[in-house]
Amino acid sequence: MSGADGSVTFINVFEIDRDDLETFTSGWRRLAGIMASAPGFRGAQLHEALSGETRFQLVNVARWDSEQAWRDAAANPEMRAAAERLGADPVPRAVHNTGLYRPVVTFDGEDRGTP
Amino acid sequence: MSGADGSVTFINVFEIDRDDLETFTSGWRRLAGIMASAPGFRGAQLHEALSGETRFQLVNVARWDSEQAWRDAAANPEMRAAAERLGADPVPRAVHNTGLYRPVVTFDGEDRGTP
Repeated sequence: MSGADGSVTFINVFEIDRDDLETFTSGWRRLAGIMASAPGFRGAQLHEALSGETRFQLVNVARWDSEQAWRDAAANPEMRAAAERLGADPVPRAVHNTGLYRPVVTFDGEDRGTP
Repeated sequence: MSGADGSVTFINVFEIDRDDLETFTSGWRRLAGIMASAPGFRGAQLHEALSGETRFQLVNVARWDSEQAWRDAAANPEMRAAAERLGADPVPRAVHNTGLYRPVVTFDGEDRGTP
């Protein structure tokens, strides 16, 4: 149900107004900083759309050692308190579409030089 | 408008029935194999949701040297022909939500050992 080594990828696809990106990203950065200190965290990257026409303006991709590591981090009281503070801030409303994923196809181009 | 080195991330968020995942992934693999041979391709990973409850069952994350490299690859006649064949195949219908992105926040946990 996960990667070959048991790792999982947490993806959050945000529906948010482009005008609200900067404020939202600041809040997200604080929250993610707490998540990043949890055991089993491998890395996360928040992606911002280049174009205002893109349906989903922000996409977060985070990697964890295991589904359990992610669940433990999300259930941590400090994390939950930080998430509640973020929700209470006057930050823009965003629709979160979250899920845990496993890689099914990987193409690696990093070993090929540019022709 | 892109990463510090000019690189961009192409993300495709798929809306597709869970029953259709295997067939769709096979078709996607052929198409991605052609993209992977294009100049400027850095890597791609197709992620499949662990749970059938997840709204977006597949998410593709691909990295390119530049927006132009991605545009050139997408406009390549061989690529367009392969995409048309894929569209003509009896593969499941999927809604594609595509966009080019740049990283705005990165947390790296790979240098930390598991406690």
